[in-house]
Amino acid sequence: MGVSRRLVQRVIRPAGIELDGDRPWDVRVHDDRVFRRVLTRGTLGVGESYMDGWWDAERVDELVARAQRVDVASRLATPLDLVRSAATRVRNPQTRERSREVGVRHYDIGNDLYARMLDRRMIYSCAYWRDASDLDAAQEAKLRLVANKLRLEPGMRLLDVGCGWGGAARHFAEANGCEVVGVTISREQAALAREHCAGLPVEIRLQDYRNVDERFDRVYSIGMFEHVGVRNHRAFMEVLRRNLADPDGLALLHTIGAGTSRRTADAWINRYIFPNSMLPSAAQITAAAEGLLVLEDWQNFGPDYDRTLMAWHRNVEAAWPDLPGYGERFRRMWRFYLLASAGMFRARSLHLWQLVFSRDGSSDTYRPPSIR
Amino acid sequence: MGVSRRLVQRVIRPAGIELDGDRPWDVRVHDDRVFRRVLTRGTLGVGESYMDGWWDAERVDELVARAQRVDVASRLATPLDLVRSAATRVRNPQTRERSREVGVRHYDIGNDLYARMLDRRMIYSCAYWRDASDLDAAQEAKLRLVANKLRLEPGMRLLDVGCGWGGAARHFAEANGCEVVGVTISREQAALAREHCAGLPVEIRLQDYRNVDERFDRVYSIGMFEHVGVRNHRAFMEVLRRNLADPDGLALLHTIGAGTSRRTADAWINRYIFPNSMLPSAAQITAAAEGLLVLEDWQNFGPDYDRTLMAWHRNVEAAWPDLPGYGERFRRMWRFYLLASAGMFRARSLHLWQLVFSRDGSSDTYRPPSIR
Repeated sequence: MGVSRRLVQRVIRPAGIELDGDRPWDVRVHDDRVFRRVLTRGTLGVGESYMDGWWDAERVDELVARAQRVDVASRLATPLDLVRSAATRVRNPQTRERSREVGVRHYDIGNDLYARMLDRRMIYSCAYWRDASDLDAAQEAKLRLVANKLRLEPGMRLLDVGCGWGGAARHFAEANGCEVVGVTISREQAALAREHCAGLPVEIRLQDYRNVDERFDRVYSIGMFEHVGVRNHRAFMEVLRRNLADPDGLALLHTIGAGTSRRTADAWINRYIFPNSMLPSAAQITAAAEGLLVLEDWQNFGPDYDRTLMAWHRNVEAAWPDLPGYGERFRRMWRFYLLASAGMFRARSLHLWQLVFSRDGSSDTYRPPSIR
Repeated sequence: MGVSRRLVQRVIRPAGIELDGDRPWDVRVHDDRVFRRVLTRGTLGVGESYMDGWWDAERVDELVARAQRVDVASRLATPLDLVRSAATRVRNPQTRERSREVGVRHYDIGNDLYARMLDRRMIYSCAYWRDASDLDAAQEAKLRLVANKLRLEPGMRLLDVGCGWGGAARHFAEANGCEVVGVTISREQAALAREHCAGLPVEIRLQDYRNVDERFDRVYSIGMFEHVGVRNHRAFMEVLRRNLADPDGLALLHTIGAGTSRRTADAWINRYIFPNSMLPSAAQITAAAEGLLVLEDWQNFGPDYDRTLMAWHRNVEAAWPDLPGYGERFRRMWRFYLLASAGMFRARSLHLWQLVFSRDGSSDTYRPPSIR
């Protein structure tokens, strides 16, 4: 056990993290089996041992941010990680069949949890904090930002690819006077989205995005591209293109971005949080869009996701007494997910990207809104 | 000759262009040999036969814009184009030696021509027309845009990669109180840049960008990346990274962008205008920067280059009587270069991109200026 402890110590020391130190980002060890588990299972072992209560830290978010700045994760990579990445070359983890798994395993776990964690519109993606001081306002600001970038006008017909609980569709119908078709593959989301949008010109469909082939004035996708997978990035961009009616029609892609090109998610995230997902790199996105769409504007507001995740974390902690039935292991799993993600954005290992594309371009320069 | 004429007619008809038609973008044929030359030599033959006066059009810019929207150029591709592209895999056209060629052949042809063509600062890159109505104002607006994006402050030390005639370096020294080191590989540019910046804290060096290894607060490169070549994109990004002193230091890349990834320039442009150059695609740029720099912001104002090129064209036409010694074939060559380029931007086949990178990111979201 002494050898494993020293090996782990050596890996995390360049990050300024100590075992049983007294700073908020130091690791408090509760069970010495944690070292062997981390060394044999990499980041999967880090997360699992946290779920099992084998270690703690006062500020898991700060611990992860520090570890990430010196890329501790890659020093913990295991042979299994390589196998998983190679496997995506022979098997598409996001076929129409398999891609439903994330719907069932993540988005259907319980609307009660999401209702307490998220803002009042239940927007499950990065908020925009530039001129906002609370989560409700920041999510509304994000939707205004999207509406301004897309230059929404009353009567426009919009396609929402991955509509979640319908918060964005509802907003653009109410605030901008648009008609919206939203697609999702989560039954729970579709049901609640229909409730949220009742009485508005919003149609919610339980449908794979690849099957949509119509004509819209605008297409947007907020926080869904992370589930698409590199093998389907091109098909996704083709969906954006073919559903835009006009040459100067606009599409907006709001997605988490990764600093490096990979074909799979982190092993722990894949097993416990988002099955069959992966974060796209800038190189993967641009390669997928080449020849299909004209890139007009690209904004990175990754640090705003740090704030969003910390707000969600506070909401969950506060609501926990009212959320029975999830259990302690789930609670630690969810906390690790939110805080580790916040740390990744704080370290600028992950990004939040909004890209605006036009179908073929216009002869006038695209002007992003000044709220940008 | 009749067969060649019919073949050419068939290629350009989808673009709405007629031979000997009467619209401004129709081709007026002066010499029937033009058809065989175009069919055997592709776009090289198009440009050469224009230089030789074998054909004309009232609006070459509109002709090219229309041809480009239906991609006539690729239907004129010749085996030679493929060979040139393949050759870049075994030979680097932009070694430290060969990259001087564009300095001698393009930038040293005569400061008198550029002085009459360009604005009063002699800025040889896309201007920013958002709030400007003449070229001088639009170039000044572009420099203000760059200064705002880089958040320049008095006393900052800047590196200008490819400084041209020193117009940007001079402006940032005068208007923003910065110190600037500018590098160029053109002797004529260096000499004139030193004159322009006399008395200011600006050092102009005749030096390859790959040899710069110092510490700066900011690094920028305006209109030079087009000469770097795909084999050296990574080295260029490494220069940006290693010359930034601080983790949150900013770099700005202003470059023409291509809609598709290629390894060479158009054959005519390569032979007559920019030897050993090539326009980067978004996929090539993002791949080159991956893991080296954090992308914070990406703006496309390609249509502004259409306006800039048309302004340069008007300036050259007006100044021609005062520019003896260039000859008629050079005049037609230069006119074709400016008008065909304007047409490419109008068709949105080419883009003007400004990318802002940070070295490692900051924990605050990067906010582009509202003038954006």
